[in-house]
Amino acid sequence: MNKPMESREGSSLAYFTEANSAEVVNARMAPDTDPRLREIMSVVVKHLHAAIKELRLTTDEWFKAIDFLTRTGKMCDDVRQEYILLSDTLGVSMLVDAINHDRPEGSTENTVLGPFYVPNSPRFENGADISLDGKGEPVLVKGRVLDQAGKPIAGALLEVWQANADGFYDVQQKGVQPDNNLRAAFTSDANGEFWFRSAKPLFYPIPGDGPVGEMLAALGRSIYRPAHLHFMVSAPGYDTIITHIFTPDCPYLQKDPVFGVKQSLIAEFHKFDDPAEAERRGFKGPFWSVGWDFVMAPKALPAA
Amino acid sequence: MNKPMESREGSSLAYFTEANSAEVVNARMAPDTDPRLREIMSVVVKHLHAAIKELRLTTDEWFKAIDFLTRTGKMCDDVRQEYILLSDTLGVSMLVDAINHDRPEGSTENTVLGPFYVPNSPRFENGADISLDGKGEPVLVKGRVLDQAGKPIAGALLEVWQANADGFYDVQQKGVQPDNNLRAAFTSDANGEFWFRSAKPLFYPIPGDGPVGEMLAALGRSIYRPAHLHFMVSAPGYDTIITHIFTPDCPYLQKDPVFGVKQSLIAEFHKFDDPAEAERRGFKGPFWSVGWDFVMAPKALPAA
Repeated sequence: MNKPMESREGSSLAYFTEANSAEVVNARMAPDTDPRLREIMSVVVKHLHAAIKELRLTTDEWFKAIDFLTRTGKMCDDVRQEYILLSDTLGVSMLVDAINHDRPEGSTENTVLGPFYVPNSPRFENGADISLDGKGEPVLVKGRVLDQAGKPIAGALLEVWQANADGFYDVQQKGVQPDNNLRAAFTSDANGEFWFRSAKPLFYPIPGDGPVGEMLAALGRSIYRPAHLHFMVSAPGYDTIITHIFTPDCPYLQKDPVFGVKQSLIAEFHKFDDPAEAERRGFKGPFWSVGWDFVMAPKALPAA
Repeated sequence: MNKPMESREGSSLAYFTEANSAEVVNARMAPDTDPRLREIMSVVVKHLHAAIKELRLTTDEWFKAIDFLTRTGKMCDDVRQEYILLSDTLGVSMLVDAINHDRPEGSTENTVLGPFYVPNSPRFENGADISLDGKGEPVLVKGRVLDQAGKPIAGALLEVWQANADGFYDVQQKGVQPDNNLRAAFTSDANGEFWFRSAKPLFYPIPGDGPVGEMLAALGRSIYRPAHLHFMVSAPGYDTIITHIFTPDCPYLQKDPVFGVKQSLIAEFHKFDDPAEAERRGFKGPFWSVGWDFVMAPKALPAA
């Protein structure tokens, strides 16, 4: 037989009603609950109850929500994180990034990390060609890493990764693409400069075969991420930049399903047809070129 | 190579920023999105973004939330629904019930259905003893089914189920408890009356070994449901009542982890020691008695 046990919980002054619902739930937290956890739960419960009341949610709609959340969890495994995809497609990931990386005017803005970053990419000398499958149109990527005063930052680490012309990252197609296709790390030189050869990026779909795909289809939303190169740029004493460079001509720029596009991250890509210039840059024919400077902000000091 | 596809989606006037985040996400829904789905998504996104901004959620806290939601989904299977448990423990299930079953003053209030209802319970004549394992203290449950004017409703179906003295429902202990222990259906007689013998209910724990149990522990909240009998009462033309009768002496009455207690659902239980009365009622010794009238409201007419 059960015996009553001590509990630390707070006491409600009243039983639950529609009018007092959030207050009754929040009053149950123990007085010694971690203050930040208490704050998070209070705000979550307040908005959750407010949304349900505003919608006059029906029992059937509630059950559909339970089913959606359950299936989203069950879709997750070692290589698929459907809840991060849900967060991305509801704008939550970008919002959390915006809150946590509000940089000074003029420094390069962040955008979503995405699921395909791999630490410790192979390092190359400037000028290397990272397109190992040779697909797509060749592109020269070059630029500088600068501080906010415009001074070059030498020795910055630039990690780059992108999808291939078939719309997949190397890690999505192990055995199909060469390992580390379109994935590499470079170091800025004494003038803060970096340059390498790659393939002009193309748009590609986010995984559409799960509950998030169902949601986007029901809302008439696109699943295609606009074409971009991913960059992670780090240097001692500076706030690490996690960002994209977008091509300006992609038909999905205004429809990014994860809301990663920022006006400041849309680059210019120029086409070069001159055989002499191609040879000088290491290409066999016409190529694209994009110039991009990363402006780093100092790392924020830890709160005192 | 990917080709652009038609999409029905709406267009945002601006790229995503912290200030316009919810508006940009909601503007993406296609103009022909189902109007109710559009309303639900708009309100959910609005409150989700407002909560994150109010909290200034950190990247680490965001990741903990993703992990919690993922594990809650993975905990679900055919006999365990952790997302309904999360809904219950955040007061969402009771709130949805309150919104959808706002009955006229004087009629019996609803409370949570819970996970242990089984349709088509075995039917018994009034007076039957449904405590098949003989555990706990005997109780006589008797009362009437009435309409709002106090007139008896004959032929109402009363389905009852409860946990045994060890804190488990029959369906949680197949092979341990007799099948249909403390689970039965009765019919009100010509005077609207019903009566049966059972065991006085005791408090019992909700499943505490999953993410919801972790959450309740972190908040210092109790996992014990206060002692109750479950009832589902149905009759043609009336709104089906799904409710509990609570014992007044349970130490967890103010701590129900699913917020199911309502003042109007706390009954009086009286102890009887008189051997003659016990024999007349079919008991072998002292017993408890609880009287309870269910007042049914007419079924709401479908909206025109």
